[in-house]
Amino acid sequence: MPDTAINLQEKLARFSEHWSPRVIAEMNDYQFKLAKVLGEFVWHSHADTDEVFIVLAGEMVLEFRDRSVALAAGEMYVVPRGVEHRPVASSECSIMLVEPRGVVNTGDAGGAYTAPNDIWV
Amino acid sequence: MPDTAINLQEKLARFSEHWSPRVIAEMNDYQFKLAKVLGEFVWHSHADTDEVFIVLAGEMVLEFRDRSVALAAGEMYVVPRGVEHRPVASSECSIMLVEPRGVVNTGDAGGAYTAPNDIWV
Repeated sequence: MPDTAINLQEKLARFSEHWSPRVIAEMNDYQFKLAKVLGEFVWHSHADTDEVFIVLAGEMVLEFRDRSVALAAGEMYVVPRGVEHRPVASSECSIMLVEPRGVVNTGDAGGAYTAPNDIWV
Repeated sequence: MPDTAINLQEKLARFSEHWSPRVIAEMNDYQFKLAKVLGEFVWHSHADTDEVFIVLAGEMVLEFRDRSVALAAGEMYVVPRGVEHRPVASSECSIMLVEPRGVVNTGDAGGAYTAPNDIWV
């Protein structure tokens, strides 16, 4: 059990790669991850779980097949399981993701954006 | 599925009671709750689950029987299941809690600070 809190800005300062989530904490079998995003990600879905996006700095858009939802710093959104989505950021955006341990960033889509899983920072 | 993001400041502005968590989102069987805290809460623990504290504004201390952990805005901490803790804030502090649906704020302790559960804002 750590003696100090987890500082989100301090953790964000430790990496610069885009679309490469870093785990900062675990709660039961869930993980809290930080990521920096820029540009258009791949369309994908997660069949078995919802996924939470919380924007820490900057802004991004969650594109769905039937709508787009804009998120700015201090805003969050729950992507329901099975729903195709594509995160897009026109300038760099820092986010926190909350989802079960083992979720892969590209879900069912795979491809070049698939990041190593369970990398801590 | 909502058309807009959840804005944390907008949700915080909707209530003023202390120690009375309000649900703002669900992910699988977990809930994201906002709370405003001030003063000393009761010592308690949650036997069956970890509990995440994220400070959104202000600062607070998580007291444990063997240590104290200070949290400021932009910091988080995971209280492990079964560990006695007491949140304390010397001035008003706004936090987000993440924990399974059904967790009661006072855990095993009960008493006057026990808040109604599953109240959305």
